[in-house]
Amino acid sequence: MARFFGTPDGVKVGQFFLDRRELQSAWVHRPGRAGISGTKAEGADSIVVSGGYVDDEDHGSYLIYTGHGGNQRRPNKQIADQDPEAPGNAGLITSLVQGLPVRVIRGAHASSPFAPRAGYVYSGLYSVTSWWMETGRDGFRIVRFRLDAIDNQTVVEPAPAIDHDPAFASAVVTRRIRDTAVAREVKELYDFSCQICGIGLRGFEGRKYAEGAHVRPLGRPHLGADHLENLLCLCPNHHTQLDIGGIWISDDMVAMYATSHEPVATLSWKKRHRVNRENVAYHRSLWPSIAELAS
Amino acid sequence: MARFFGTPDGVKVGQFFLDRRELQSAWVHRPGRAGISGTKAEGADSIVVSGGYVDDEDHGSYLIYTGHGGNQRRPNKQIADQDPEAPGNAGLITSLVQGLPVRVIRGAHASSPFAPRAGYVYSGLYSVTSWWMETGRDGFRIVRFRLDAIDNQTVVEPAPAIDHDPAFASAVVTRRIRDTAVAREVKELYDFSCQICGIGLRGFEGRKYAEGAHVRPLGRPHLGADHLENLLCLCPNHHTQLDIGGIWISDDMVAMYATSHEPVATLSWKKRHRVNRENVAYHRSLWPSIAELAS
Repeated sequence: MARFFGTPDGVKVGQFFLDRRELQSAWVHRPGRAGISGTKAEGADSIVVSGGYVDDEDHGSYLIYTGHGGNQRRPNKQIADQDPEAPGNAGLITSLVQGLPVRVIRGAHASSPFAPRAGYVYSGLYSVTSWWMETGRDGFRIVRFRLDAIDNQTVVEPAPAIDHDPAFASAVVTRRIRDTAVAREVKELYDFSCQICGIGLRGFEGRKYAEGAHVRPLGRPHLGADHLENLLCLCPNHHTQLDIGGIWISDDMVAMYATSHEPVATLSWKKRHRVNRENVAYHRSLWPSIAELAS
Repeated sequence: MARFFGTPDGVKVGQFFLDRRELQSAWVHRPGRAGISGTKAEGADSIVVSGGYVDDEDHGSYLIYTGHGGNQRRPNKQIADQDPEAPGNAGLITSLVQGLPVRVIRGAHASSPFAPRAGYVYSGLYSVTSWWMETGRDGFRIVRFRLDAIDNQTVVEPAPAIDHDPAFASAVVTRRIRDTAVAREVKELYDFSCQICGIGLRGFEGRKYAEGAHVRPLGRPHLGADHLENLLCLCPNHHTQLDIGGIWISDDMVAMYATSHEPVATLSWKKRHRVNRENVAYHRSLWPSIAELAS
Protein backbone atom coordinates (compact mmCIF):
# COMPACT_ATOMS: atom_id res chain seq x y z
CA MET A 1 0.00 0.00 0.00
CA ALA A 2 1.37 3.36 -0.99
CA ARG A 3 -0.33 5.11 1.88
CA PHE A 4 0.78 4.31 5.43
CA PHE A 5 -1.98 3.81 8.04
CA GLY A 6 -1.46 3.65 11.79
CA THR A 7 1.25 5.00 14.08
CA PRO A 8 4.75 4.86 12.56
CA ASP A 9 7.29 2.82 14.52
CA GLY A 10 9.09 4.94 17.08
CA VAL A 11 6.42 7.65 17.13
CA LYS A 12 4.63 8.10 20.47
CA VAL A 13 1.21 9.52 21.19
CA GLY A 14 1.83 12.95 22.69
CA GLN A 15 5.10 13.39 20.80
CA PHE A 16 5.98 16.96 19.85
CA PHE A 17 6.94 18.12 16.35
CA LEU A 18 8.41 21.53 15.64
CA ASP A 19 6.96 22.01 12.17
CA ARG A 20 5.37 20.43 9.09
CA ARG A 21 8.74 19.21 7.86
CA GLU A 22 9.29 17.20 11.04
CA LEU A 23 5.78 15.69 10.71
CA GLN A 24 6.58 14.83 7.11
CA SER A 25 9.91 13.12 7.71
CA ALA A 26 8.47 11.08 10.62
CA TRP A 27 5.65 9.83 8.31
CA VAL A 28 3.10 11.34 10.73
CA HIS A 29 1.58 13.73 8.16
CA ARG A 30 2.95 13.67 4.64
CA PRO A 31 1.44 16.67 2.81
CA GLY A 32 3.33 19.93 3.00
CA ARG A 33 0.30 22.17 3.41
CA ALA A 34 -2.97 20.19 3.20
CA GLY A 35 -4.79 19.44 6.45
CA ILE A 36 -6.04 16.06 5.21
CA SER A 37 -3.76 13.36 3.79
CA GLY A 38 -5.86 11.04 1.64
CA THR A 39 -7.76 10.14 -1.51
CA LYS A 40 -11.10 8.50 -2.25
CA ALA A 41 -9.39 5.33 -3.53
CA GLU A 42 -6.95 4.84 -0.63
CA GLY A 43 -8.74 6.53 2.26
CA ALA A 44 -7.29 9.24 4.53
CA ASP A 45 -4.41 8.31 6.85
CA SER A 46 -3.89 11.58 8.77
CA ILE A 47 -5.34 15.01 9.51
CA VAL A 48 -3.99 18.15 11.12
CA VAL A 49 -6.31 20.09 13.43
CA SER A 50 -4.96 23.61 13.68
CA GLY A 51 -7.88 25.96 14.02
CA GLY A 52 -8.00 26.86 10.34
CA TYR A 53 -11.74 26.23 10.15
CA VAL A 54 -14.11 28.27 12.28
CA ASP A 55 -16.54 25.36 12.71
CA ASP A 56 -14.08 22.82 14.14
CA GLU A 57 -14.82 21.45 17.63
CA ASP A 58 -12.22 19.64 19.74
CA HIS A 59 -13.65 17.54 22.58
CA GLY A 60 -10.45 15.61 23.22
CA SER A 61 -11.82 12.08 22.94
CA TYR A 62 -13.63 13.11 19.77
CA LEU A 63 -13.48 15.89 17.19
CA ILE A 64 -16.08 17.53 14.99
CA TYR A 65 -13.84 18.27 12.04
CA THR A 66 -14.56 20.44 9.01
CA GLY A 67 -13.58 19.08 5.61
CA HIS A 68 -11.25 20.69 3.11
CA GLY A 69 -11.91 23.76 0.99
CA GLY A 70 -13.70 27.07 0.76
CA ASN A 71 -11.96 28.79 3.66
CA GLN A 72 -9.62 31.76 3.96
CA ARG A 73 -7.09 32.52 6.70
CA ARG A 74 -6.58 35.79 8.61
CA PRO A 75 -9.34 36.12 9.49
CA ASN A 76 -10.44 32.46 9.35
CA LYS A 77 -13.75 32.23 7.54
CA GLN A 78 -15.63 30.10 5.04
CA ILE A 79 -16.01 31.93 1.77
CA ALA A 80 -17.43 29.08 -0.35
CA ASP A 81 -19.21 25.71 -0.18
CA GLN A 82 -17.23 22.49 0.34
CA ASP A 83 -17.43 19.38 -1.85
CA PRO A 84 -17.56 15.84 -0.36
CA GLU A 85 -15.85 14.60 -3.54
CA ALA A 86 -12.74 16.76 -3.01
CA PRO A 87 -9.86 14.29 -2.46
CA GLY A 88 -9.28 14.85 1.27
CA ASN A 89 -12.98 14.81 2.07
CA ALA A 90 -13.66 11.75 -0.08
CA GLY A 91 -10.66 10.12 1.62
CA LEU A 92 -12.13 10.61 5.09
CA ILE A 93 -15.44 9.12 3.87
CA THR A 94 -13.52 6.07 2.59
CA SER A 95 -11.79 5.81 5.99
CA LEU A 96 -15.22 5.81 7.64
CA VAL A 97 -16.59 3.14 5.30
CA GLN A 98 -13.52 0.90 5.53
CA GLY A 99 -12.80 1.56 9.21
CA LEU A 100 -9.30 2.88 8.50
CA PRO A 101 -7.43 4.48 11.43
CA VAL A 102 -6.66 8.19 11.02
CA ARG A 103 -3.65 9.83 12.70
CA VAL A 104 -4.71 13.07 14.37
CA ILE A 105 -2.14 15.85 14.74
CA ARG A 106 -3.00 18.94 16.77
CA GLY A 107 -1.35 22.19 15.75
CA ALA A 108 -1.01 25.22 18.02
CA HIS A 109 -4.17 27.33 18.11
CA ALA A 110 -6.27 29.15 20.64
CA SER A 111 -9.60 27.45 20.20
CA SER A 112 -8.72 23.98 21.60
CA PRO A 113 -7.66 23.18 25.18
CA PHE A 114 -6.00 20.06 23.75
CA ALA A 115 -3.77 21.93 21.29
CA PRO A 116 -0.10 22.59 22.09
CA ARG A 117 1.21 26.11 22.80
CA ALA A 118 3.40 25.91 19.70
CA GLY A 119 4.29 23.41 16.99
CA TYR A 120 2.40 20.13 16.62
CA VAL A 121 1.49 17.18 18.84
CA TYR A 122 0.69 13.69 17.54
CA SER A 123 -2.58 12.80 19.27
CA GLY A 124 -2.86 9.16 18.15
CA LEU A 125 -5.34 7.20 16.06
CA TYR A 126 -8.98 8.10 15.63
CA SER A 127 -11.86 6.41 13.78
CA VAL A 128 -14.15 8.40 11.51
CA THR A 129 -17.51 7.47 13.03
CA SER A 130 -19.83 9.80 11.11
CA TRP A 131 -19.96 12.38 8.34
CA TRP A 132 -22.63 14.79 7.15
CA MET A 133 -23.12 18.15 5.44
CA GLU A 134 -24.39 21.25 7.14
CA THR A 135 -24.46 25.01 6.80
CA GLY A 136 -21.53 26.43 8.74
CA ARG A 137 -21.27 29.54 10.87
CA ASP A 138 -20.41 31.65 7.83
CA GLY A 139 -23.42 30.46 5.85
CA PHE A 140 -21.74 28.04 3.41
CA ARG A 141 -22.29 24.29 3.02
CA ILE A 142 -19.50 22.41 4.79
CA VAL A 143 -18.54 18.74 5.01
CA ARG A 144 -18.32 17.58 8.60
CA PHE A 145 -16.72 14.54 10.20
CA ARG A 146 -16.89 13.08 13.68
CA LEU A 147 -13.66 11.32 14.69
CA ASP A 148 -13.48 9.28 17.91
CA ALA A 149 -10.22 8.41 19.65
CA ILE A 150 -9.41 4.72 19.38
CA ASP A 151 -9.29 3.38 22.94
CA ASN A 152 -6.48 1.38 24.55
CA GLN A 153 -3.90 3.90 23.38
CA THR A 154 -1.45 5.71 25.59
CA VAL A 155 -3.04 9.10 26.09
CA VAL A 156 -1.32 12.44 25.95
CA GLU A 157 0.04 13.29 29.41
CA PRO A 158 -0.66 15.68 31.00
CA ALA A 159 -4.13 15.88 29.47
CA PRO A 160 -7.12 18.06 30.38
CA ALA A 161 -10.22 16.26 31.60
CA ILE A 162 -11.70 14.55 28.59
CA ASP A 163 -15.21 15.43 27.51
CA HIS A 164 -16.93 12.14 26.75
CA ASP A 165 -20.14 11.73 24.82
CA PRO A 166 -22.69 9.94 27.01
CA ALA A 167 -24.80 8.71 24.10
CA PHE A 168 -21.73 6.99 22.67
CA ALA A 169 -20.49 5.74 26.03
CA SER A 170 -23.74 3.98 26.82
CA ALA A 171 -24.10 2.31 23.46
CA VAL A 172 -22.62 1.54 20.11
CA VAL A 173 -19.16 2.71 19.21
CA THR A 174 -18.00 2.30 15.62
CA ARG A 175 -18.74 -1.29 14.68
CA ARG A 176 -16.11 -1.63 12.03
CA ILE A 177 -12.87 -3.40 12.68
CA ARG A 178 -9.75 -1.43 13.39
CA ASP A 179 -7.57 -3.20 10.90
CA THR A 180 -3.90 -3.87 11.02
CA ALA A 181 -1.85 -3.27 7.87
CA VAL A 182 -1.88 -7.02 7.20
CA ALA A 183 -5.66 -7.15 7.49
CA ARG A 184 -5.92 -4.37 4.92
CA GLU A 185 -3.55 -6.35 2.71
CA VAL A 186 -5.73 -9.48 2.79
CA LYS A 187 -8.85 -7.44 1.97
CA GLU A 188 -7.18 -5.88 -1.04
CA LEU A 189 -5.86 -9.27 -2.15
CA TYR A 190 -9.47 -10.53 -2.36
CA ASP A 191 -10.82 -7.19 -3.61
CA PHE A 192 -13.02 -6.99 -0.47
CA SER A 193 -15.01 -10.14 -1.20
CA CYS A 194 -15.69 -12.90 1.34
CA GLN A 195 -13.58 -16.07 1.03
CA ILE A 196 -16.56 -18.10 2.23
CA CYS A 197 -19.57 -16.69 0.34
CA GLY A 198 -18.00 -14.36 -2.23
CA ILE A 199 -20.15 -11.41 -1.16
CA GLY A 200 -18.53 -7.98 -1.52
CA LEU A 201 -20.42 -5.33 0.43
CA ARG A 202 -20.67 -1.83 -0.97
CA GLY A 203 -20.99 1.48 0.88
CA PHE A 204 -21.52 5.08 -0.14
CA GLU A 205 -20.84 5.57 -3.85
CA GLY A 206 -19.55 2.06 -4.38
CA ARG A 207 -16.87 2.03 -1.70
CA LYS A 208 -15.97 -1.56 -0.87
CA TYR A 209 -16.22 -3.16 2.57
CA ALA A 210 -14.89 -6.42 3.98
CA GLU A 211 -13.22 -7.51 7.21
CA GLY A 212 -9.85 -9.04 7.97
CA ALA A 213 -10.57 -11.95 10.32
CA HIS A 214 -7.82 -13.30 12.55
CA VAL A 215 -8.32 -17.06 12.83
CA ARG A 216 -6.26 -17.48 16.00
CA PRO A 217 -7.27 -14.44 18.09
CA LEU A 218 -4.83 -11.60 18.72
CA GLY A 219 -4.00 -10.56 22.24
CA ARG A 220 -3.46 -12.43 25.47
CA PRO A 221 -3.70 -15.31 26.03
CA HIS A 222 -4.09 -16.54 22.43
CA LEU A 223 -1.31 -14.43 20.93
CA GLY A 224 -2.39 -15.18 17.36
CA ALA A 225 -0.06 -13.70 14.77
CA ASP A 226 -0.96 -10.65 12.71
CA HIS A 227 0.26 -12.41 9.56
CA LEU A 228 -1.37 -13.45 6.29
CA GLU A 229 -1.25 -17.11 7.40
CA ASN A 230 -3.63 -16.18 10.22
CA LEU A 231 -6.02 -13.94 8.27
CA LEU A 232 -9.10 -14.40 6.13
CA CYS A 233 -11.03 -11.83 4.12
CA LEU A 234 -14.65 -12.26 5.22
CA CYS A 235 -18.00 -10.50 5.15
CA PRO A 236 -19.28 -9.35 8.55
CA ASN A 237 -21.74 -12.27 8.82
CA HIS A 238 -19.09 -14.93 8.32
CA HIS A 239 -16.54 -13.06 10.43
CA THR A 240 -19.08 -12.86 13.26
CA GLN A 241 -19.89 -16.56 13.03
CA LEU A 242 -16.18 -17.44 13.06
CA ASP A 243 -15.73 -15.29 16.19
CA ILE A 244 -18.71 -16.69 18.08
CA GLY A 245 -18.14 -20.37 17.34
CA GLY A 246 -20.91 -20.66 14.74
CA ILE A 247 -18.54 -21.92 12.06
CA TRP A 248 -15.20 -23.72 12.12
CA ILE A 249 -12.61 -24.50 9.49
CA SER A 250 -11.42 -28.03 8.73
CA ASP A 251 -7.81 -28.96 7.99
CA ASP A 252 -8.72 -29.12 4.30
CA MET A 253 -9.97 -25.53 4.56
CA VAL A 254 -13.71 -26.10 4.35
CA ALA A 255 -15.88 -23.79 6.48
CA MET A 256 -18.34 -25.92 8.50
CA TYR A 257 -21.47 -25.02 10.49
CA ALA A 258 -20.83 -25.77 14.16
CA THR A 259 -24.43 -26.79 14.82
CA SER A 260 -24.92 -29.28 11.97
CA HIS A 261 -21.28 -29.87 11.06
CA GLU A 262 -22.44 -29.50 7.45
CA PRO A 263 -20.13 -27.62 5.07
CA VAL A 264 -20.84 -23.92 4.49
CA ALA A 265 -18.38 -23.67 1.61
CA THR A 266 -14.81 -24.39 0.62
CA LEU A 267 -12.69 -21.30 1.20
CA SER A 268 -11.52 -19.59 -1.98
CA TRP A 269 -7.83 -18.66 -2.14
CA LYS A 270 -5.57 -16.35 -4.08
CA LYS A 271 -2.22 -17.69 -5.23
CA ARG A 272 -0.19 -15.69 -2.68
CA HIS A 273 -2.31 -16.67 0.31
CA ARG A 274 -2.96 -19.66 2.61
CA VAL A 275 -3.95 -19.88 6.28
CA ASN A 276 -1.92 -22.46 8.13
CA ARG A 277 -3.46 -25.52 9.77
CA GLU A 278 -2.14 -24.75 13.24
CA ASN A 279 -4.26 -21.61 13.27
CA VAL A 280 -7.50 -23.28 12.15
CA ALA A 281 -6.82 -26.08 14.67
CA TYR A 282 -6.29 -23.47 17.41
CA HIS A 283 -9.59 -21.81 16.48
CA ARG A 284 -11.41 -25.17 16.71
CA SER A 285 -9.79 -25.86 20.08
CA LEU A 286 -11.44 -22.71 21.49
CA TRP A 287 -14.86 -24.35 21.22
CA PRO A 288 -14.86 -27.70 23.11
CA SER A 289 -17.82 -29.33 21.34
CA ILE A 290 -16.33 -28.34 17.97
CA ALA A 291 -12.90 -29.68 18.91
CA GLU A 292 -14.46 -33.05 19.76
CA LEU A 293 -16.56 -33.42 16.62
CA ALA A 294 -13.87 -32.06 14.34
CA SER A 295 -11.22 -34.45 15.61
CA MET B 1 -36.05 -8.66 30.48
CA ALA B 2 -35.83 -10.24 33.91
CA ARG B 3 -32.10 -9.71 34.04
CA PHE B 4 -30.80 -6.14 34.16
CA PHE B 5 -27.76 -5.32 31.96
CA GLY B 6 -25.68 -2.18 32.19
CA THR B 7 -25.03 0.29 35.00
CA PRO B 8 -28.07 0.94 37.22
CA ASP B 9 -29.22 4.57 37.40
CA GLY B 10 -27.49 6.47 40.17
CA VAL B 11 -24.61 3.99 40.43
CA LYS B 12 -21.17 5.40 39.60
CA VAL B 13 -18.06 3.64 38.39
CA GLY B 14 -15.72 3.57 41.39
CA GLN B 15 -18.59 3.58 43.87
CA PHE B 16 -17.93 1.74 47.14
CA PHE B 17 -20.21 -0.93 48.63
CA LEU B 18 -19.82 -2.22 52.17
CA ASP B 19 -21.05 -5.77 51.55
CA ARG B 20 -22.96 -8.17 49.32
CA ARG B 21 -26.29 -6.90 50.63
CA GLU B 22 -25.49 -3.36 49.47
CA LEU B 23 -24.49 -4.67 46.03
CA GLN B 24 -27.75 -6.60 45.91
CA SER B 25 -30.07 -3.76 46.84
CA ALA B 26 -28.34 -1.40 44.35
CA TRP B 27 -28.91 -3.99 41.55
CA VAL B 28 -25.14 -4.08 40.99
CA HIS B 29 -24.77 -7.80 41.76
CA ARG B 30 -27.91 -9.75 42.64
CA PRO B 31 -26.77 -13.17 43.87
CA GLY B 32 -26.10 -13.52 47.58
CA ARG B 33 -23.01 -15.69 47.23
CA ALA B 34 -22.26 -16.61 43.60
CA GLY B 35 -19.47 -14.74 41.82
CA ILE B 36 -21.26 -14.82 38.46
CA SER B 37 -24.82 -13.57 37.96
CA GLY B 38 -26.21 -15.22 34.83
CA THR B 39 -27.67 -18.13 32.89
CA LYS B 40 -27.08 -19.62 29.43
CA ALA B 41 -30.47 -18.35 28.18
CA GLU B 42 -30.18 -14.75 29.44
CA GLY B 43 -26.42 -14.20 29.54
CA ALA B 44 -24.39 -12.96 32.52
CA ASP B 45 -24.95 -9.39 33.74
CA SER B 46 -22.37 -9.11 36.53
CA ILE B 47 -19.35 -10.78 38.16
CA VAL B 48 -17.47 -10.29 41.41
CA VAL B 49 -13.67 -10.55 41.33
CA SER B 50 -12.55 -11.22 44.86
CA GLY B 51 -9.50 -13.45 44.70
CA GLY B 52 -11.41 -16.64 45.29
CA TYR B 53 -9.74 -18.37 42.34
CA VAL B 54 -5.99 -18.83 42.29
CA ASP B 55 -5.78 -18.44 38.51
CA ASP B 56 -7.48 -15.04 38.22
CA GLU B 57 -5.45 -12.18 36.70
CA ASP B 58 -6.44 -8.52 37.08
CA HIS B 59 -4.80 -6.18 34.57
CA GLY B 60 -7.13 -3.26 35.24
CA SER B 61 -8.30 -2.60 31.70
CA TYR B 62 -8.85 -6.34 31.27
CA LEU B 63 -9.25 -9.42 33.41
CA ILE B 64 -8.42 -13.06 32.92
CA TYR B 65 -11.26 -14.50 34.96
CA THR B 66 -11.76 -18.07 36.11
CA GLY B 67 -15.23 -19.56 35.73
CA HIS B 68 -17.40 -21.00 38.48
CA GLY B 69 -16.91 -24.24 40.34
CA GLY B 70 -14.40 -26.74 41.65
CA ASN B 71 -12.63 -24.46 44.10
CA GLN B 72 -12.23 -24.38 47.87
CA ARG B 73 -11.49 -21.41 50.13
CA ARG B 74 -8.90 -21.13 52.92
CA PRO B 75 -6.59 -21.99 51.37
CA ASN B 76 -7.88 -21.03 47.87
CA LYS B 77 -7.34 -23.92 45.50
CA GLN B 78 -8.99 -25.78 42.64
CA ILE B 79 -10.04 -29.25 43.77
CA ALA B 80 -12.05 -30.31 40.68
CA ASP B 81 -12.61 -29.57 36.98
CA GLN B 82 -14.96 -26.81 35.87
CA ASP B 83 -17.84 -27.18 33.41
CA PRO B 84 -18.55 -24.60 30.66
CA GLU B 85 -22.23 -25.60 30.87
CA ALA B 86 -22.55 -24.61 34.54
CA PRO B 87 -25.05 -21.69 34.60
CA GLY B 88 -22.65 -18.84 35.42
CA ASN B 89 -20.03 -20.05 32.93
CA ALA B 90 -22.60 -20.66 30.18
CA GLY B 91 -23.98 -17.18 30.95
CA LEU B 92 -20.62 -15.52 30.34
CA ILE B 93 -20.30 -17.42 27.04
CA THR B 94 -23.74 -16.10 26.02
CA SER B 95 -22.60 -12.58 26.97
CA LEU B 96 -19.58 -13.04 24.70
CA VAL B 97 -21.66 -14.31 21.79
CA GLN B 98 -24.35 -11.64 22.13
CA GLY B 99 -22.02 -8.80 23.13
CA LEU B 100 -23.81 -8.19 26.43
CA PRO B 101 -22.13 -5.76 28.87
CA VAL B 102 -20.99 -7.31 32.17
CA ARG B 103 -20.76 -5.29 35.39
CA VAL B 104 -17.45 -5.97 37.12
CA ILE B 105 -17.28 -5.64 40.91
CA ARG B 106 -13.93 -5.91 42.66
CA GLY B 107 -13.92 -7.26 46.19
CA ALA B 108 -11.11 -6.71 48.69
CA HIS B 109 -8.21 -9.12 48.19
CA ALA B 110 -4.45 -9.05 48.18
CA SER B 111 -3.71 -10.30 44.68
CA SER B 112 -5.00 -7.31 42.67
CA PRO B 113 -3.64 -3.74 42.76
CA PHE B 114 -7.09 -2.62 41.53
CA ALA B 115 -9.02 -4.18 44.41
CA PRO B 116 -10.24 -2.05 47.34
CA ARG B 117 -8.76 -2.42 50.85
CA ALA B 118 -12.15 -3.57 52.13
CA GLY B 119 -15.67 -4.07 50.84
CA TYR B 120 -16.49 -3.86 47.14
CA VAL B 121 -15.97 -1.35 44.32
CA TYR B 122 -18.10 -1.20 41.17
CA SER B 123 -15.57 -1.12 38.32
CA GLY B 124 -17.96 -0.49 35.43
CA LEU B 125 -18.92 -2.43 32.30
CA TYR B 126 -16.69 -4.96 30.57
CA SER B 127 -17.12 -7.03 27.39
CA VAL B 128 -16.34 -10.73 27.37
CA THR B 129 -13.91 -10.85 24.45
CA SER B 130 -12.70 -14.45 24.66
CA TRP B 131 -13.16 -17.75 26.50
CA TRP B 132 -11.25 -21.02 26.54
CA MET B 133 -10.42 -24.00 28.72
CA GLU B 134 -7.05 -24.70 30.22
CA THR B 135 -5.36 -26.62 33.00
CA GLY B 136 -5.04 -24.32 36.01
CA ARG B 137 -2.23 -23.98 38.51
CA ASP B 138 -3.68 -26.77 40.67
CA GLY B 139 -3.89 -29.21 37.75
CA PHE B 140 -7.63 -29.14 37.06
CA ARG B 141 -9.46 -28.07 33.87
CA ILE B 142 -10.79 -24.54 34.32
CA VAL B 143 -13.01 -22.31 32.20
CA ARG B 144 -11.35 -18.99 31.46
CA PHE B 145 -12.71 -15.67 30.26
CA ARG B 146 -11.05 -12.51 29.07
CA LEU B 147 -13.08 -9.39 29.88
CA ASP B 148 -12.07 -5.99 28.49
CA ALA B 149 -13.20 -2.69 29.99
CA ILE B 150 -15.66 -0.88 27.75
CA ASP B 151 -14.05 2.42 26.81
CA ASN B 152 -15.51 5.91 27.23
CA GLN B 153 -16.47 5.19 30.81
CA THR B 154 -15.49 7.28 33.80
CA VAL B 155 -12.59 5.37 35.28
CA VAL B 156 -11.99 4.66 38.94
CA GLU B 157 -10.04 7.58 40.47
CA PRO B 158 -7.42 7.36 41.85
CA ALA B 159 -6.40 4.34 39.78
CA PRO B 160 -3.04 2.62 39.38
CA ALA B 161 -1.41 2.83 35.95
CA ILE B 162 -3.41 0.56 33.68
CA ASP B 163 -1.69 -2.35 31.99
CA HIS B 164 -2.84 -2.31 28.38
CA ASP B 165 -2.50 -5.18 25.94
CA PRO B 166 -0.52 -4.00 22.91
CA ALA B 167 -1.84 -6.71 20.60
CA PHE B 168 -5.36 -5.55 21.34
CA ALA B 169 -4.49 -1.87 21.24
CA SER B 170 -3.02 -2.11 17.78
CA ALA B 171 -5.84 -4.07 16.28
CA VAL B 172 -9.27 -5.53 16.66
CA VAL B 173 -11.22 -5.06 19.83
CA THR B 174 -14.50 -6.95 20.24
CA ARG B 175 -16.44 -6.41 17.03
CA ARG B 176 -19.86 -6.98 18.51
CA ILE B 177 -22.12 -4.11 19.35
CA ARG B 178 -22.45 -2.90 22.90
CA ASP B 179 -26.18 -2.89 22.98
CA THR B 180 -28.52 -0.68 24.89
CA ALA B 181 -31.47 -2.28 26.68
CA VAL B 182 -33.76 -1.17 23.85
CA ALA B 183 -31.48 -2.78 21.25
CA ARG B 184 -31.66 -6.04 23.18
CA GLU B 185 -35.45 -5.66 23.24
CA VAL B 186 -35.71 -5.32 19.45
CA LYS B 187 -33.47 -8.37 18.94
CA GLU B 188 -35.63 -10.50 21.21
CA LEU B 189 -38.78 -9.20 19.52
CA TYR B 190 -37.50 -10.59 16.19
CA ASP B 191 -35.91 -13.66 17.81
CA PHE B 192 -32.50 -12.48 16.51
CA SER B 193 -33.41 -12.65 12.82
CA CYS B 194 -32.73 -9.88 10.30
CA GLN B 195 -35.69 -7.68 9.32
CA ILE B 196 -34.22 -7.38 5.82
CA CYS B 197 -33.07 -10.90 4.90
CA GLY B 198 -34.51 -13.07 7.69
CA ILE B 199 -31.11 -14.61 8.49
CA GLY B 200 -30.57 -15.57 12.13
CA LEU B 201 -26.90 -16.19 12.88
CA ARG B 202 -25.94 -18.91 15.34
CA GLY B 203 -22.93 -19.10 17.61
CA PHE B 204 -21.50 -21.69 19.98
CA GLU B 205 -24.10 -24.36 20.80
CA GLY B 206 -26.92 -22.58 19.02
CA ARG B 207 -26.66 -19.23 20.76
CA LYS B 208 -28.41 -16.59 18.64
CA TYR B 209 -26.79 -13.44 17.28
CA ALA B 210 -28.22 -10.30 15.70
CA GLU B 211 -27.56 -6.58 16.00
CA GLY B 212 -29.73 -3.67 17.06
CA ALA B 213 -29.23 -1.01 14.39
CA HIS B 214 -29.99 2.62 15.21
CA VAL B 215 -31.38 4.21 12.02
CA ARG B 216 -30.65 7.79 13.06
CA PRO B 217 -27.20 7.54 14.69
CA LEU B 218 -26.74 7.98 18.43
CA GLY B 219 -24.37 10.59 19.78
CA ARG B 220 -23.50 14.10 18.72
CA PRO B 221 -24.42 15.66 16.39
CA HIS B 222 -27.17 13.31 15.21
CA LEU B 223 -28.69 12.62 18.63
CA GLY B 224 -30.78 9.73 17.36
CA ALA B 225 -33.09 8.30 20.01
CA ASP B 226 -32.44 4.98 21.71
CA HIS B 227 -36.08 4.00 21.20
CA LEU B 228 -37.82 1.17 19.34
CA GLU B 229 -38.98 3.67 16.67
CA ASN B 230 -35.31 4.20 15.79
CA LEU B 231 -34.13 0.59 15.90
CA LEU B 232 -34.03 -2.35 13.52
CA CYS B 233 -32.99 -5.94 14.19
CA LEU B 234 -30.42 -6.71 11.46
CA CYS B 235 -27.72 -9.21 10.58
CA PRO B 236 -24.18 -7.78 10.60
CA ASN B 237 -24.08 -7.52 6.78
CA HIS B 238 -27.21 -5.43 6.53
CA HIS B 239 -26.32 -3.41 9.62
CA THR B 240 -22.93 -2.62 8.09
CA GLN B 241 -24.47 -1.58 4.76
CA LEU B 242 -26.98 0.66 6.56
CA ASP B 243 -24.11 2.29 8.47
CA ILE B 244 -21.87 2.86 5.45
CA GLY B 245 -24.50 4.19 3.04
CA GLY B 246 -24.81 0.98 1.01
CA ILE B 247 -28.54 0.69 1.63
CA TRP B 248 -31.26 3.16 2.48
CA ILE B 249 -34.85 2.81 3.60
CA SER B 250 -37.78 4.35 1.74
CA ASP B 251 -40.76 6.00 3.43
CA ASP B 252 -42.77 2.86 2.72
CA MET B 253 -40.10 0.86 4.58
CA VAL B 254 -38.41 -0.90 1.69
CA ALA B 255 -34.64 -1.37 1.98
CA MET B 256 -32.98 -0.15 -1.24
CA TYR B 257 -29.45 -0.59 -2.62
CA ALA B 258 -27.75 2.82 -2.76
CA THR B 259 -25.80 1.96 -5.92
CA SER B 260 -28.63 0.64 -8.11
CA HIS B 261 -31.59 2.04 -6.15
CA GLU B 262 -33.12 -1.42 -6.64
CA PRO B 263 -35.06 -2.86 -3.70
CA VAL B 264 -33.21 -5.27 -1.40
CA ALA B 265 -36.37 -6.33 0.45
CA THR B 266 -39.40 -4.98 2.23
CA LEU B 267 -38.69 -4.85 5.97
CA SER B 268 -40.59 -7.39 8.04
CA TRP B 269 -42.32 -6.10 11.16
CA LYS B 270 -43.73 -7.43 14.39
CA LYS B 271 -47.03 -6.05 15.59
CA ARG B 272 -45.52 -4.02 18.43
CA HIS B 273 -42.84 -2.39 16.30
CA ARG B 274 -42.43 0.31 13.62
CA VAL B 275 -39.57 2.68 12.80
CA ASN B 276 -40.76 6.21 12.20
CA ARG B 277 -40.35 8.01 8.88
CA GLU B 278 -38.42 10.94 10.33
CA ASN B 279 -35.63 8.54 11.28
CA VAL B 280 -35.37 6.82 7.90
CA ALA B 281 -35.49 10.26 6.23
CA TYR B 282 -32.69 11.44 8.54
CA HIS B 283 -30.60 8.39 7.61
CA ARG B 284 -31.09 9.12 3.89
CA SER B 285 -30.12 12.75 4.44
CA LEU B 286 -26.70 11.62 5.73
CA TRP B 287 -25.77 10.45 2.22
CA PRO B 288 -26.18 13.32 -0.27
CA SER B 289 -26.51 11.25 -3.45
CA ILE B 290 -29.06 9.03 -1.72
CA ALA B 291 -31.03 12.01 -0.47
CA GLU B 292 -31.28 13.35 -4.04
CA LEU B 293 -32.35 10.11 -5.70
CA ALA B 294 -34.70 9.14 -2.89
CA SER B 295 -36.55 12.44 -2.93
